[in-house]
Parts: sequence; C-alpha cells; structure tokens
Amino acid sequence: MTMERRVSIFRKEHFNAAHRLFVPGWTDEQNFATFGKCSNPHYHGHNYDLVVKVTGEPDARTGYVINLSDLSAIIQQQVLAKFDHKNLNLDTKEFATLNPTAENIVYVIYEILRQQIDPKFDLSVRLYETDRNFVEYPG
Amino acid sequence: MTMERRVSIFRKEHFNAAHRLFVPGWTDEQNFATFGKCSNPHYHGHNYDLVVKVTGEPDARTGYVINLSDLSAIIQQQVLAKFDHKNLNLDTKEFATLNPTAENIVYVIYEILRQQIDPKFDLSVRLYETDRNFVEYPG
Amino acid sequence: MTMERRVSIFRKEHFNAAHRLFVPGWTDEQNFATFGKCSNPHYHGHNYDLVVKVTGEPDARTGYVINLSDLSAIIQQQVLAKFDHKNLNLDTKEFATLNPTAENIVYVIYEILRQQIDPKFDLSVRLYETDRNFVEYPG
Amino acid sequence: MTMERRVSIFRKEHFNAAHRLFVPGWTDEQNFATFGKCSNPHYHGHNYDLVVKVTGEPDARTGYVINLSDLSAIIQQQVLAKFDHKNLNLDTKEFATLNPTAENIVYVIYEILRQQIDPKFDLSVRLYETDRNFVEYPG
Amino acid sequence: MTMERRVSIFRKEHFNAAHRLFVPGWTDEQNFATFGKCSNPHYHGHNYDLVVKVTGEPDARTGYVINLSDLSAIIQQQVLAKFDHKNLNLDTKEFATLNPTAENIVYVIYEILRQQIDPKFDLSVRLYETDRNFVEYPG
Amino acid sequence: MTMERRVSIFRKEHFNAAHRLFVPGWTDEQNFATFGKCSNPHYHGHNYDLVVKVTGEPDARTGYVINLSDLSAIIQQQVLAKFDHKNLNLDTKEFATLNPTAENIVYVIYEILRQQIDPKFDLSVRLYETDRNFVEYPG
Repeated sequence: MTMERRVSIFRKEHFNAAHRLFVPGWTDEQNFATFGKCSNPHYHGHNYDLVVKVTGEPDARTGYVINLSDLSAIIQQQVLAKFDHKNLNLDTKEFATLNPTAENIVYVIYEILRQQIDPKFDLSVRLYETDRNFVEYPG
Repeated sequence: MTMERRVSIFRKEHFNAAHRLFVPGWTDEQNFATFGKCSNPHYHGHNYDLVVKVTGEPDARTGYVINLSDLSAIIQQQVLAKFDHKNLNLDTKEFATLNPTAENIVYVIYEILRQQIDPKFDLSVRLYETDRNFVEYPG
Repeated sequence: MTMERRVSIFRKEHFNAAHRLFVPGWTDEQNFATFGKCSNPHYHGHNYDLVVKVTGEPDARTGYVINLSDLSAIIQQQVLAKFDHKNLNLDTKEFATLNPTAENIVYVIYEILRQQIDPKFDLSVRLYETDRNFVEYPG
Repeated sequence: MTMERRVSIFRKEHFNAAHRLFVPGWTDEQNFATFGKCSNPHYHGHNYDLVVKVTGEPDARTGYVINLSDLSAIIQQQVLAKFDHKNLNLDTKEFATLNPTAENIVYVIYEILRQQIDPKFDLSVRLYETDRNFVEYPG
Repeated sequence: MTMERRVSIFRKEHFNAAHRLFVPGWTDEQNFATFGKCSNPHYHGHNYDLVVKVTGEPDARTGYVINLSDLSAIIQQQVLAKFDHKNLNLDTKEFATLNPTAENIVYVIYEILRQQIDPKFDLSVRLYETDRNFVEYPG
Repeated sequence: MTMERRVSIFRKEHFNAAHRLFVPGWTDEQNFATFGKCSNPHYHGHNYDLVVKVTGEPDARTGYVINLSDLSAIIQQQVLAKFDHKNLNLDTKEFATLNPTAENIVYVIYEILRQQIDPKFDLSVRLYETDRNFVEYPG
C-alpha cells in the first residue's frame, strides 16, 4: 500500500488554571462593562481541554504520522508544565501583559508547539474553556 | 504582539423541539418509505445542540474575536426564541412548508445568524439532532 | 471463586419523542403558570436516554447477572417500540391521561420492565430528559 | 394511578471558580507535601459541575416532584450567585477559613440548599471538580 | 427556497476490536521501543467510535443530503461487519500485513466507504481510538 | 466546623484490554449461543473506564477524605499495571480461568482495592465496558 495521503492525528490534554480578563489601562467599570464577571479582580478558573491536531503522511513502515506518546510528552513539557495549576496572569510570562482570553491562550499555545513540531506537519490547536465556549487556531 | 491571525470561536446552545418529516404532496406510504418513523403524523422530538463558529481577528486590545455574551444573546434572541419548545412544523413560519430535516434547519439557522453577525467574520453552524446524527453548514 | 455477592449491571438505550405537559382540567393560563414553555399546545420533544439497572448475583458459570443482549431486547420490545418516535400524549395509552413528566415516564417504564425482569433481580430506572434534567425510580 | 412512590429528580448546574488548597498554620513545604500543585499560592481554577438530587413523591396532579425551574432558580440564587466566577478563598465567607476541597465545597452547598428545600424531600449533592475527580454528599 | 449550498451530514457508529501494533520484520525490542505497550504480543483492545461525514447538496424535495438510515446501513454492512468484535490482526484481511494504527484503520475505512458513496458527495472519516487519541482522513 | 459527616469521593481511571468470553468446557456453539460475538476466539477489546468511590469522614484539618493523588497511585499500581494494554484471558492470573465478564472484572478489581484501602472507608467500584454497558459492585 502506498501512503500518498495526509492524515490528521489528534491528542487531547488537560490543564486547570486561574485567570482574570482585563485591560490594564482601563478602569474597573470599563473592564466590567467588557468582560463581565470574567473581570473579577480576585480571579476565577477553568478546566481547560486542549486538542492538538497534527497533519502529515503516515510513515510507510510504522503507520504513524507522529508517535502520540512523543506528542503527548511535548505538550506536557512545553504547555502543561507552564500553565497547569497556575494563575495565568501572575504565574506566567506569556500572560503577564497579554489578556488571557481563550483566543490569546490558543494562539500562545500554537506558537509554543509550532516550534516543537516538525515543519513538514501542519498544526492546529483547539482549546475548550468550558463545554460551551471554545476556540481554534489553525495557524 | 501583533495579531495578524484569524481565530475561530465557538458557542454551544441548546433547544428542544418537536417535528415531523414529510413531503406535503406525498401519500403516507411514500413519506414512510422515505422518512421512516420520522414521518409519524403526530410528531416526535429532539434535544438539539447548536454550535455556532465565528472566525476573525481578535481585537488587539481586548483579545476577543467577539464577546461570547453578545454572541450567546444573539443566538438566544434570534434562534432559540423562535424554535425552543416549539413544534417546528406548526409553530414556525420557517418550516411551515419546508421539511424540517437537520440539513434544512442548519441552513435556516445559518441564514438567520448571517444577518446578525458582522460580515468581516466567517460563520459556520453545526447542529446535533442526536449524538449520532448531526450536520454542518459552513456558508 | 464463590460468588456470594450482588453486582449491578446497567444498559443504556435511547428514544426520541414529542410531548406536552398539562393538566386537562386547567386553563391554558394555569398550565402555562405551572409548566411554562413545556405546556406549548403543539408539543415539543426530547432525546431521552434511558439507563436500566439490574442487580443480582452473577451466574457462577457464565459470570453474567443477566445477558445484556436479552436485557437490551426486552427494553427495545417493551419500551422503545411503544415510545420511540412517538407523541407521548397522542400515540400512547400510557400517557393518554397521565401527564408525561419525566417522573411519570420513569415510573411507567419501571412498571413495564418490572413485569419482564425475574423477581430475583432488583430493578432501578434512570431517565435523562436532557443532560441537565433527569430522574430515577428505584422501585 | 396512585402515586405511592418516591422518585429522585436531578438538576445539573455549573460554575467556574479559582481556589487554593492549604492549611493556614502550615508552612509552604507542609502544604505542598499534602496538596501538591493544588497549593499554588496564586490559585488555580476549575469548571465545577453541580448535580442536585431531590427525592420525594410526585404530585398526583402535576406529576412533578418539584418544579425544575424552581429548583434551578434556588441553585442559581443561593449557590451560583455566591461562587460563580469567584475566588473561593478570597471572595466568599464560607471558605475564608475553611479549606475549599471538593469535600468541603459539596458539604457547604448541601447545607445551603438543605435550608431552601422542603424537609419532606431528601437531598443529595454531587460536585464534579473535573471529569475524573468528584464527590457526593447525601446528607 | 433554492438549495445552492453544500451541507455536511455526520453519522457516528461504534465497534470494539482487539489489535497489536508491530512491524513484522522487527525484533520485540524494536517494536516495544516504537509502539510501547501497544505492542503487547497478546493484543489489547479498544472501543472505536467512527464518525462518517458526507457533504453534498440536500435534495430540494426531501431536504436530505443522504438518508442517514441508508448511510448507517452501509457502514454496518461494509465496515462493522468486518471489524466489530474482531481481532484486527488475525481476523481481517485488511490488516493481515498492514499495521493497525489508527492512521491505517481510518484510511482503510475511508477506502471501503468511498466505493459505496456516490462520487457526487465528498467523504471524510474520523476515528476515535480513545477519547484522547483520534484521527481523521478527509480523502 | 465539626465534620460529623460522610462524603464519597470518586476517581476515574482508564485502561484498554483485549478479552474473550467463554466457558472452557463448552463447545464453540454453546459459547456462541450464550456470549455471541463476544466469544470470538481471537479476542476483541474495550476502553474500560473505572470509577472508584471511597466514602468516609473528611479530615478536619485538610478537608480530604483521602488524597486523590494517593488513590490514583493505588489504582495505577494495583489495577492498571495488571490490566492496561493486556489480554485479560492470556496475560493475567486473575482471568486465567475466570470468565472476564464485566461483572467478574469489577468484582476482581474491588477485591484488589479493598486490600489497599483503609477499612474505615467504604468502597464501591463501577466499570464501564462501553458507554452503554456498565457494572457496579458496592461490596
């Protein structure tokens, strides 16, 4: 069987974090008007589900696009080690000044992983903030 | 950080409705042959899960593509207020003559939302009739 | 290994139905005050998930409490054949006069199944009207 | 149909909160040894799923144990208004000195709801901190 | 309503199978180094969830892209009859020599279904090996 | 706050295994008549979800019934290390002669864990063979 095809492989991981949404130069009233209760000064938090999609040709011998154990290890070392059980605003350099909206988090995670994944593969990242609110960045 | 990128943001909503699948000019036998038990004259019903996907550039200041509270309010006012706890065939003008298949429902919802969402955003709508049967219309 | 123990075994099945909640002698205003949009005269509907729990001693030879194929067949023949893709108010004798609340539906299903399941087994039935609203009747 | 039976009815609600697990008199090392990364001083967070179970006899006329709209309103006003999008340690009096473990949170929520639910009903509360870690307090 | 549009319709099916990942010419050590515990010589197994996506124009009269009963029957006859409750390595010709990775399984299923589905429709197949590991082949 | 109460705490873990259901002394016909396709001689497999419930009084100081990290480690070392990515019939002593039905597996896991969990705690174990077929053994 020749393998002239591209298959996507997905790995789901998980982290828990606190965050607060706000624009530093704005008043509390402005922040509350835009971000609602997500702007609570003492933070709130989420169980984030992260789905990483890697697309490429399966290896003709192994049948793997990428070894999922390797992909999982990359996500754990490069993403979860930074963000899991952390306060995104206070404990991470990535969100020290960048507002940790789902849109910004998924972009930051994509950029981190893009440097770890062989350029011959396409990469896309989806992030669930809740079951009802989620985002995707296909690069 | 410059934000020359497009991120998709998804909001899941929910409605419950009754419907019956049938072609008005057909006999009961013809309708039953095509639509099976979905053609039961007294209707049956579903818990519909609706996932609305909006794609655009996050605002450089807020980090939002679109405020999910606003998107949720639009879906509730324009879609759920019409269809939730309704008989799609009898209680809605949209399906007074159009057969309320999942394909037609997702198209109708897309058209309603397309008029409410800023044209700078791409829109796609997915509708789950059950966990095992679902449809998507990307516009 | 002696098997002096009782194990519960669960089977999940599924049906879709339309219904309307109302008390026949009440005015529309009274019904709407109590049942809200669930009282819509033209019906609405649900994907019902049904979980049947049977408790007993596993057979020492087969290791089965009850063959799940048999249990599934009983549920399909005795429950789903009556209620799936039906209007509970109009198409069933069980709810011709009994209000089809989740509480009443789960009780009716329990009574139907209790007659089919060997009395040496305990029986309990759970019914999901939605992911967020569900009921259980342990007999 | 006489209704000499007790049925349980469940309502699932949701809140997002930040928290930190620690014993005030302990050193950081002691807290980290017991609570691990859950003791991160700057908090982390969760999507909490709350399932409230009320058991009683359905009303012979309406077929309701309790109106789920009423139950949902009680949970929202008495529980979610206190805890949703809050820092449990800093923003609530309930956890100002009580360690906000899942065990303690579910107990506190039970006590709040027990005062709002008619004593003729049994009450049980389940709290999901994650999909894999959850607790239940049956009173 | 003119139907100049393409809608995707999805059907989810399920099968249970045993498999072992290995390259025939390799030593056990080589196979274990690449495939880890998935290379256990006596096999392990999965509940596979299969999602088949068919994209086309809904029929103007029926409102169906494809009748989901027909699609489900095709999947059951052509895919589940081959793979459900089977050992993929030993019981199927498709994986007699081809390593049954998720990537190879999804490709094989696509090829089987592509011959059964009218060429006017686009086809895409997603396969869940677990909730956290899944693949997709869009053709 | 005095803690005169008992709270249940649940931990969900996961393993993948192959198995075959059969009674050794029976003919293939007898086994097939009882176990259907679950009796396929070359095995099939499942993603098993395991939910372990421990009930006791939370510690007055920590607020923990049991540290979930400790419970998770026990399950991994005592249960998953034996069964994950194994052929239950061929690779385990527990099911060398005992038919690996869900009922028997849940009982075996309960007995293993009962020896590891402090007797002051109640223990109950639930095992999902699929989303639709599951068992529970409360001891």
